[in-house]
Amino acid sequence: MSLDAFFTPRSVAVIGASTKPHKLGHAVLDNLVNGGYLTDDRQVYPINLKAKTILGLPAYPSVTDVPNPIDLAVIVIPYPLVPNALRTCGEKSIPAAIIISAGFREAGMEGLQRERELVEIAEQYNIRLIGPNCLGVIDTNTPLNASFSAGLPPGGPMAFMSQSGALGTAILDWAQAGRLGLSKFVSLGNKADVSETDLLRAWSDDPHSQVILCYIEGLPDGQEFIHVARQVSKKKPIVALKSGVTQAGSRAVSSHTGSLAGSEQAYQAAFRQAGVLRANSLQDLFDYARAFGYLPPLEGDRIAIVTNAGGPGILATDALERAGLRLARFDPECIQALEQFLPDAASAANPVDVLGDARSDRYRFAIEHVAADPHVDGILVILAPQALTDIAETAKVVTEIAGKVDLPVLACFMGEMQVKAGIEILETHNVPNFSYPERAAMVLKGMSTYRGYKAEPPPIYEEFVVDQTLVRQTLDGALSQGRVTIGDAESRAILTAYGLQIPASELAKTDDQAVEIANRIGYPVVLKVASPDILHKTDVGGVKVGLQNATDVRDAFDLITYRSQRYLPEARLWGCLVQKMVPPGLEILIGMNRDPQFGPLVTFGLGGIYVETLQDVTFRIAPFSRLEAEEMIGEIRAHALLDGVRGEPPVDKLALIDALLRIGQMVTDFPEIAELDINPFVVYEQGYGGISIDMRLVLRPNEQQAGSATQAGSAGSST
Amino acid sequence: MSLDAFFTPRSVAVIGASTKPHKLGHAVLDNLVNGGYLTDDRQVYPINLKAKTILGLPAYPSVTDVPNPIDLAVIVIPYPLVPNALRTCGEKSIPAAIIISAGFREAGMEGLQRERELVEIAEQYNIRLIGPNCLGVIDTNTPLNASFSAGLPPGGPMAFMSQSGALGTAILDWAQAGRLGLSKFVSLGNKADVSETDLLRAWSDDPHSQVILCYIEGLPDGQEFIHVARQVSKKKPIVALKSGVTQAGSRAVSSHTGSLAGSEQAYQAAFRQAGVLRANSLQDLFDYARAFGYLPPLEGDRIAIVTNAGGPGILATDALERAGLRLARFDPECIQALEQFLPDAASAANPVDVLGDARSDRYRFAIEHVAADPHVDGILVILAPQALTDIAETAKVVTEIAGKVDLPVLACFMGEMQVKAGIEILETHNVPNFSYPERAAMVLKGMSTYRGYKAEPPPIYEEFVVDQTLVRQTLDGALSQGRVTIGDAESRAILTAYGLQIPASELAKTDDQAVEIANRIGYPVVLKVASPDILHKTDVGGVKVGLQNATDVRDAFDLITYRSQRYLPEARLWGCLVQKMVPPGLEILIGMNRDPQFGPLVTFGLGGIYVETLQDVTFRIAPFSRLEAEEMIGEIRAHALLDGVRGEPPVDKLALIDALLRIGQMVTDFPEIAELDINPFVVYEQGYGGISIDMRLVLRPNEQQAGSATQAGSAGSST
Repeated sequence: MSLDAFFTPRSVAVIGASTKPHKLGHAVLDNLVNGGYLTDDRQVYPINLKAKTILGLPAYPSVTDVPNPIDLAVIVIPYPLVPNALRTCGEKSIPAAIIISAGFREAGMEGLQRERELVEIAEQYNIRLIGPNCLGVIDTNTPLNASFSAGLPPGGPMAFMSQSGALGTAILDWAQAGRLGLSKFVSLGNKADVSETDLLRAWSDDPHSQVILCYIEGLPDGQEFIHVARQVSKKKPIVALKSGVTQAGSRAVSSHTGSLAGSEQAYQAAFRQAGVLRANSLQDLFDYARAFGYLPPLEGDRIAIVTNAGGPGILATDALERAGLRLARFDPECIQALEQFLPDAASAANPVDVLGDARSDRYRFAIEHVAADPHVDGILVILAPQALTDIAETAKVVTEIAGKVDLPVLACFMGEMQVKAGIEILETHNVPNFSYPERAAMVLKGMSTYRGYKAEPPPIYEEFVVDQTLVRQTLDGALSQGRVTIGDAESRAILTAYGLQIPASELAKTDDQAVEIANRIGYPVVLKVASPDILHKTDVGGVKVGLQNATDVRDAFDLITYRSQRYLPEARLWGCLVQKMVPPGLEILIGMNRDPQFGPLVTFGLGGIYVETLQDVTFRIAPFSRLEAEEMIGEIRAHALLDGVRGEPPVDKLALIDALLRIGQMVTDFPEIAELDINPFVVYEQGYGGISIDMRLVLRPNEQQAGSATQAGSAGSST
Repeated sequence: MSLDAFFTPRSVAVIGASTKPHKLGHAVLDNLVNGGYLTDDRQVYPINLKAKTILGLPAYPSVTDVPNPIDLAVIVIPYPLVPNALRTCGEKSIPAAIIISAGFREAGMEGLQRERELVEIAEQYNIRLIGPNCLGVIDTNTPLNASFSAGLPPGGPMAFMSQSGALGTAILDWAQAGRLGLSKFVSLGNKADVSETDLLRAWSDDPHSQVILCYIEGLPDGQEFIHVARQVSKKKPIVALKSGVTQAGSRAVSSHTGSLAGSEQAYQAAFRQAGVLRANSLQDLFDYARAFGYLPPLEGDRIAIVTNAGGPGILATDALERAGLRLARFDPECIQALEQFLPDAASAANPVDVLGDARSDRYRFAIEHVAADPHVDGILVILAPQALTDIAETAKVVTEIAGKVDLPVLACFMGEMQVKAGIEILETHNVPNFSYPERAAMVLKGMSTYRGYKAEPPPIYEEFVVDQTLVRQTLDGALSQGRVTIGDAESRAILTAYGLQIPASELAKTDDQAVEIANRIGYPVVLKVASPDILHKTDVGGVKVGLQNATDVRDAFDLITYRSQRYLPEARLWGCLVQKMVPPGLEILIGMNRDPQFGPLVTFGLGGIYVETLQDVTFRIAPFSRLEAEEMIGEIRAHALLDGVRGEPPVDKLALIDALLRIGQMVTDFPEIAELDINPFVVYEQGYGGISIDMRLVLRPNEQQAGSATQAGSAGSST
């Protein structure tokens, strides 16, 4: 259902409109009446039990008393009265309601109950809800100010949604100071109904919104968010600031893959997969907003710097290089022209130093020429106020050229008092100015990252032919025995069912049997304790490697049995697994941990002791495409090891990708798999594949139905 | 010699004082005359060939015509006239001169020649120089404005030195806008004489300067800088912004240790060793300046947050945790008091949420109580403007409490228009306000880092008993043969002379001899080609490991000889080294690369293939103390490997520290060692030491005298 009624309603009722100026119900009505919304063909209806008129408009005791249809209701009354008011909205067939009132989910269990009641009423009457516990909604193009904010912010290309109302007020204040121009503003509150994902969908084709900004605390519909954001980000940039990441990190589960795969990693992966640019701070969010809102796209990474000061030019160069961008190498013609026009001491190479005594003509010449150079994708103009600098005139020159060329021109006018007038000229003409060169570099980096996101093809999810039934039986078997862990034989069955290679091995119940098996599959072999109750076999001395003959095998069997019993007397011992020892290769970890908001978070990294000490791992939410699996492999810091170092051949990356995709499919198929680690997965040289040596798998008890992998997390809004 | 004459002269001559208002020589004189310097007992002498009076003061054709002594000369004349003018200063016994004029080192070879002439004159007459090619000097306490800046900046606790004049003007502009208060300002220009190190020394005990800020492009006297800064930083914080790091990085030398140890690493190590806090951007520099300038020290890492908005509180929490600080855990009494006073919905735990409708009384109560809690070391007060917030009054409350308590109180009043008046109150009372919570967290982290620096004991440099003579002979021997590399036997001699363990080994010239040696030292053995011309032996097939018997040795000898000849026909082959094969252990890299500004940069990291792929290395400038060597070992990402993982015993860290210290001593003793790599250094479990398996060493040709390890790098100032 469309959310248009929230942004372009033909009529709005304010339930709780008040005659008293200090009440929120008055502020909301005032914003509607005096904020430009009220016109001849648009109606505002104050709803108030007693008042006859408010702010010159006739008031009604209930929406049902209003003679005309109503598109939107804004509810600003004490929480006990809200459910009934919402019901009357339903009776009046109002399609959309903004509930500003607090006292719901954020106020404890009783509040949560009240909020559930609201959702039920809304579902019954087919009403869409924003809030409760929010600031309201603004659309500067309608214009509609259905909030209790202090005035309408200036219009502009930025659509903003915030889970925090207070952050919203700060943002509106920044906007009113002229720092930002907003197309839409939504304070999401408790998100009882309308969520970030709904707004992304709604704003995807909004011609007034060039960039979508989100302040996010939690995303209960993680998979859906990725799905929608992935499509929307192809049309316009989405920038998100996620808070609560370290707090969430503390929820890390105990197993060591889990300890790497906290929620922070899930968000990192989700934003990456969805093409959402992540802001690392509020400042980043605003700086991105201005760049994406006002500038044409950055079509390449070659940046030209024009500066009247060497020092800041070097700082900018450092920052650009650190950010992974490049200084443009100018065309010889461009350099020649600059050399002819600029004084001898100037630098015609990049960064172009027009010297401390440069007036606006030198800036104009330099900027025009580098803008015309086909080797330049973006321009950063730096100005430090010096004795002869004509700041306002130079600002005009910058805005004039920026208005003509179709590459991004950013400014860095440094200082405050002296450059104030210049910065005002720049910002009035939508040339974003950054006080420090490093900020401009950060923003250009973001624009470059977004270009990459936009160019990515839509993901294709491959499906391998696997034996789901066998896995289903194996997992059901374990659960029916009350186990949430599985034994080696089960692991091997599951891996094989999903087409993953495993070493030849068999379970031996006695030492004689172990010797018989070893003789058959050939030496050297490994013996591993077979028990569903021992997860970390190495820790208890439950693994013996490099066994060369029958005596070795017999000794190992007895040692393992003795030690395992000593370690965990109540453990069920099924015997020992006799496994063909595989040749050495590079040890890899492939793991999965189920994130409460996004579902299956798959880990890839170096295995063995390095996974713990270096934490050199990367993550994706399943399902993911072949391309995404390839990216994972390239993202670990030690990725050069995979290409072979010191004359070693490259490893079989196709085998790694294949394994990642098959595991991704398995954990999507079986939501009851809570955690999984293949460690090590030994990968061999190109063409020789890879093999899963050991798998640990933990099930979610009593949840055997395959369904949505996501669970509703806490989505309470902060103030 | 003291630099007092630059800051508190009793008389100043302006050589090139001009009657024309648009000339720099006029601006400088005007700043002296009208900037508060000129009083009854302080004189200003305009020096001008023609004018009789300037700005009401009698002018003189030359300083030698002035009847009284002169403490400071400011020279603002065209460059060809500067040397003579400086000479007259010498004749007049003026102890200090600021040369503003440009046209020296920054203007190419001829300019460099002119600058050398200045230095000679200065040395001859015992004059200290600031500049040339600079903006001048300001001391707001004298007050003295011996620069052509637009007016005197407001006084304050920050002493600032800048190699870039233009950055200086931007900084003065920020200061004049009220963002910073300066005690001293020096534009260093080309640093022909007075350098950063001189100013650090001079400002060390200056009671007006609470923090020293530096913008640095190059430090030719690297070792001296470390030595001085290390002492000064014990008294007051030094914050440095270093530019040109990525450019410098491109000068990385070809060998792989070198490729890791670019100048960036040298600065990183040097600042760390000197206790200098590194600013990563101009913004960081300013934010640190305000914190260190105005706040009492942060005595611990336990931070309290008081906020009227949940969202920003979470952002601050995230940022603090990411920065390695902690949220304070309040005393139960404190929590109880907060719970009693604050509304039910408020949070009395940290972050303290006083709720969106909080007025200043709630802020006062909360801040006073957390400030009194002994578990709190610093306080961050966050305010988002909401309907009932009394912003100015809250600002007053914050400044009032901040003035009374002796822990740092930082503010984060978010927004712009609405919070403007509040921020002004905060800043007037020296409570630094940060627009974003993440900035405040960054600053608190810096304060915490500085506390650590300040607490460090002065370094003790150990000296091992070594055989310098043997190394001297070995190196001289190589150089006298025109070699800059050394062979295996020489390496072994050098390592042994400095007390490092090496595997038993002998040089075999023939296959028979190799077998004889192997029989004697015992199998298994390794054979390595012995040639001074082959640096990377493995790459050419010049190493064979795991040789178990005479046949293996004989085969290996012939194979190595054949392949080495094929690879490099002109290489001198001395035979093969027969080396006892050592048991496996953890492979470490210890290296050294000589930085042009700081001298010997010692590298420590994981050895083998990991050094290349993970770049998990850390650096220190030699000489360094045992404590610093210990720090190095703890700094690599994989440091947990050294402590033993998965039941492995910890490695012998003492052996690693010992090896680092001995190598540090060696490269300090022998400046002709240009590069050195021990890779691998195999370290065993605690108590079993470590052993240097292979060393590569490159000499600097024709430079056998042991002297200063530093060379003058380019120190030209940017504009």
